[in-house]
Amino acid sequence: MPKASLRENLIAAAVQQFHAHGYAATGVKDITDAAGAPKGSFYNHFPSKEALAVVALERYGETMRLEHLRDSSVAPLTRLREHFESLRDANVRTEFNRGCLVGDLTVEVADHSDSVRATVRDSFQAWSDALALAIADAQEAGDVAKTLDASTLARFVLSAWEGALISARADRSARAFEAFFTVVFGVLLR
Amino acid sequence: MPKASLRENLIAAAVQQFHAHGYAATGVKDITDAAGAPKGSFYNHFPSKEALAVVALERYGETMRLEHLRDSSVAPLTRLREHFESLRDANVRTEFNRGCLVGDLTVEVADHSDSVRATVRDSFQAWSDALALAIADAQEAGDVAKTLDASTLARFVLSAWEGALISARADRSARAFEAFFTVVFGVLLR
Repeated sequence: MPKASLRENLIAAAVQQFHAHGYAATGVKDITDAAGAPKGSFYNHFPSKEALAVVALERYGETMRLEHLRDSSVAPLTRLREHFESLRDANVRTEFNRGCLVGDLTVEVADHSDSVRATVRDSFQAWSDALALAIADAQEAGDVAKTLDASTLARFVLSAWEGALISARADRSARAFEAFFTVVFGVLLR
Repeated sequence: MPKASLRENLIAAAVQQFHAHGYAATGVKDITDAAGAPKGSFYNHFPSKEALAVVALERYGETMRLEHLRDSSVAPLTRLREHFESLRDANVRTEFNRGCLVGDLTVEVADHSDSVRATVRDSFQAWSDALALAIADAQEAGDVAKTLDASTLARFVLSAWEGALISARADRSARAFEAFFTVVFGVLLR
């Protein structure tokens, strides 16, 4: 029976390596090296790099703090704004050098792997659902117009966020984030 | 002096291979094979895969028909809608299997290559400028409110598009495109 801690180290290393270098550019040896594990140990824990990517995506999703979007003790628009501010700050801290691992693996792997595609699809769905819940709360509170249904707005805002990250990485500036906050909180969610 | 046609074949093959498989997953041999050229001929034309990626991005940009966004014989909102409908149709035709090469290479390569990053930055800027011009025309025509400046709206709509492509590829459905058209043309550009 393999040690649980080595498995956890491999998952954490995979999240970090995929996030920093991409999927194809990261070899199994890069992951075992980063985890301080012998290369041969990898296959005691995962049948393939692809299988590890699925688990890494699930682990990454847990760091996104979607539960904050559901925290009814905080005003719904505040939850939404804090959620995206926190994601923005993480990207700015890395000097615009890290995107969203869910978006990254969608771009690089989803067309080629059914299991990765199913995982990113579910991640985006869970994220969109959490955003929709906060938006619906804001609509109930009278803070956001009910012209559009919350799930359409949520799906759109999520797309706009993923694209803003791409734009910020392309020009290493916060311009796209500024446009995101101006339009989302100044026009759409009001 | 190398033949111009082989160079062109290599560029076209690179656009197709990078778009279909990603940057890291595409080797120089994949490109020369797709171009029907001997591998050794590659370096007569390009010093590196990275250098070819820069040229491939420029060539891809020429296929985006930004000139249509500047065509003042067409009503500005019609230009904008047709632009995104055309991009959407291209993605639907490939069963949601191709994104935007500019966005793809931003995600996969921009953090690691200054020349690719400068090229995707310039591509997004040219695209955003063309969108801003059409939006400003729509504002002048009284079709779009002047509450926000055209360049902020353009940058935001571009992000929303890039993200919608990611979402569509993740769940192989047009849902994100529907949300994009509903929000962009039903709320933002009016």
